[in-house]
Amino acid sequence: MNQEKINDLKKWMEKEQIDLTYISDPGHIAYFSGYHSDPHERVLALFISLNSGSFLFTPALEVEDAENSSWSEPVYGYLDSEDPWEKITQLIKKNGNPLKIATEKEALSVSRFERLNQAFPSSDFSISVTPVIEKLQLLKTPAEVNKLMEAGNWADVALEIGFKAITEGAKEQEILAEIEYQLKRQGIRSMSFDTLVLTGKNAASPHGNPGNTAVAKQDLVLFDLGVVYNGYCSDVTRTVAYKEPTDFQKEIYSIVLEAQLKAMDAVKPGVTAGELDDVARGVISGYGYGEYFNHRLGHGIGTTVHEYPSLVTGNDLVIEEGMCFSIEPGIYIPGKVGVRIEDCLHVTKTGCEAFTKTTKELQIID
Amino acid sequence: MNQEKINDLKKWMEKEQIDLTYISDPGHIAYFSGYHSDPHERVLALFISLNSGSFLFTPALEVEDAENSSWSEPVYGYLDSEDPWEKITQLIKKNGNPLKIATEKEALSVSRFERLNQAFPSSDFSISVTPVIEKLQLLKTPAEVNKLMEAGNWADVALEIGFKAITEGAKEQEILAEIEYQLKRQGIRSMSFDTLVLTGKNAASPHGNPGNTAVAKQDLVLFDLGVVYNGYCSDVTRTVAYKEPTDFQKEIYSIVLEAQLKAMDAVKPGVTAGELDDVARGVISGYGYGEYFNHRLGHGIGTTVHEYPSLVTGNDLVIEEGMCFSIEPGIYIPGKVGVRIEDCLHVTKTGCEAFTKTTKELQIID
Repeated sequence: MNQEKINDLKKWMEKEQIDLTYISDPGHIAYFSGYHSDPHERVLALFISLNSGSFLFTPALEVEDAENSSWSEPVYGYLDSEDPWEKITQLIKKNGNPLKIATEKEALSVSRFERLNQAFPSSDFSISVTPVIEKLQLLKTPAEVNKLMEAGNWADVALEIGFKAITEGAKEQEILAEIEYQLKRQGIRSMSFDTLVLTGKNAASPHGNPGNTAVAKQDLVLFDLGVVYNGYCSDVTRTVAYKEPTDFQKEIYSIVLEAQLKAMDAVKPGVTAGELDDVARGVISGYGYGEYFNHRLGHGIGTTVHEYPSLVTGNDLVIEEGMCFSIEPGIYIPGKVGVRIEDCLHVTKTGCEAFTKTTKELQIID
Repeated sequence: MNQEKINDLKKWMEKEQIDLTYISDPGHIAYFSGYHSDPHERVLALFISLNSGSFLFTPALEVEDAENSSWSEPVYGYLDSEDPWEKITQLIKKNGNPLKIATEKEALSVSRFERLNQAFPSSDFSISVTPVIEKLQLLKTPAEVNKLMEAGNWADVALEIGFKAITEGAKEQEILAEIEYQLKRQGIRSMSFDTLVLTGKNAASPHGNPGNTAVAKQDLVLFDLGVVYNGYCSDVTRTVAYKEPTDFQKEIYSIVLEAQLKAMDAVKPGVTAGELDDVARGVISGYGYGEYFNHRLGHGIGTTVHEYPSLVTGNDLVIEEGMCFSIEPGIYIPGKVGVRIEDCLHVTKTGCEAFTKTTKELQIID
């Protein structure tokens, strides 16, 4: 239970005269309550009341786990045979009819929003709490930075396993299986997203699907992966060569590396998110490959693998100490070559520190 | 691209005088378009127009993959630096202003719904397409049943690997890692949900988290797992004993097995979903353990692991040939014992056939 952040949320509620905030995103519920769960299609909800009456609402079969989490206020459950919204309505009404209810408009389905609207027809539902949560999560505490660093360490471990698994004829899927196997045996419960191992031409598809393609001589092999550790995510990309690469592969690699290092160098309090994207894009465009860098430079990271801020041209958000995000330029030339290099980092007083330490010099696996 | 189901959808649109349907759930987009993707926070959308003008809308970096999928109508992309809703609005307006737009209210965020409302302020957004999609997906074609059977075969393979990995002192996490490793090496890309291996008291938490607990003598070990294969999911649960179980464990197991078999026997066209739940619940309650069976009997399965229908008391949906769902009673006595037995099946003319064949006689691993 993150009492500090709940207090911040309540301060905002007080200012905006909001009686009740309904948190619906499971990652955000975990962030505030300390209770982690994926409810699938069942209803999991956190209601933060400005005064007394905050509660966590879960499927009946999760009540015991939720009560054993760090959440210290009441937990209520519902059976599959019950209508969760009837129960929620009753629980809220115990403390009177809220006049103003904030919801997570970015993470709440229209149908659930309509159910709550129908239950409280005279309440004001105009305010979204999404931007507030994004801002609360934007600046990480030192304890959060430590957790992200630990998650980053595991990503480095994962890369090392992956590099060792590269042999002539090894399939993408086999290398990926080896990485996840070693990590899960060591206690990692989940990857932060589906692990990517892409070799040769496949690496030219930035979100490609690993399959039965085998590593061959003069392939570049792209790894994009991360773990969830103590509720915090890591995300790292490295591209390595199997056997001596061609001059063209080396050239593309060195351009991406230059873009990544220059953008990292530019990170410090005061620069804007958009300017960082411009730095990396400027390098790649300067060499004539701008059209092949077809995604933003980076994204925030924390309890979820993609969060606020978005490092994209035109975003004038000013970078501050404590923000955590990825720097991940790439060049993808369909049918030819794909290279991406990514670290996540936290912003310090004067610059930044990466959560992942795996070398970025082009590794040649022999 | 599932032309047959798109035609069914269009027939409904015609009847309801709907010009445009916006599909937002990635699983449903895959179901209709044949293009599978997890867009994370980016926008992935399928617009089905009653006349001409249907299109798939994806992040720019996915356009090539989407065009290479079985979807044969136009694909449009957007860059991270662009506003996807401006582009979507323009694309829709090319064919005039739709008067009536159906959306997936169960699978669309309030903020995206509001964006579309603002772009088409005079359109009618009252209709949800969710129940229509649920009904389309409810009755599987023979080809779909075959795919579910293949996914079930892989779940049987997974159980076999898991049973072999049980040894004294093996940790839940290690057994789970072994299962996923062997499957991924054989080409399985994703499990249909986080694999559960729970031993001893941990199995008494129906949605527990596998961890460092080691298998000990006279533990019951619960496996709940499934794979995604050719876009279709499997889901199976077996509970096995490590070394000779106690009489109490055997008793609980035999009650759950009786409930599962009687419910399977009752499956045939004409019975209701609620009656099936009642059959299993009646068995367990008859032995005095009703309060420990704290979830519904089952759920539909197809391209997603939990879909319509819900097998829960009071649901008067009439079961028909071609429906596919799980039958998964359990007894969970906190701190003592947890047993669940689950198969997914398809309804035939006269009964049902399970997708998983692993024996349900209590297996004793020595």
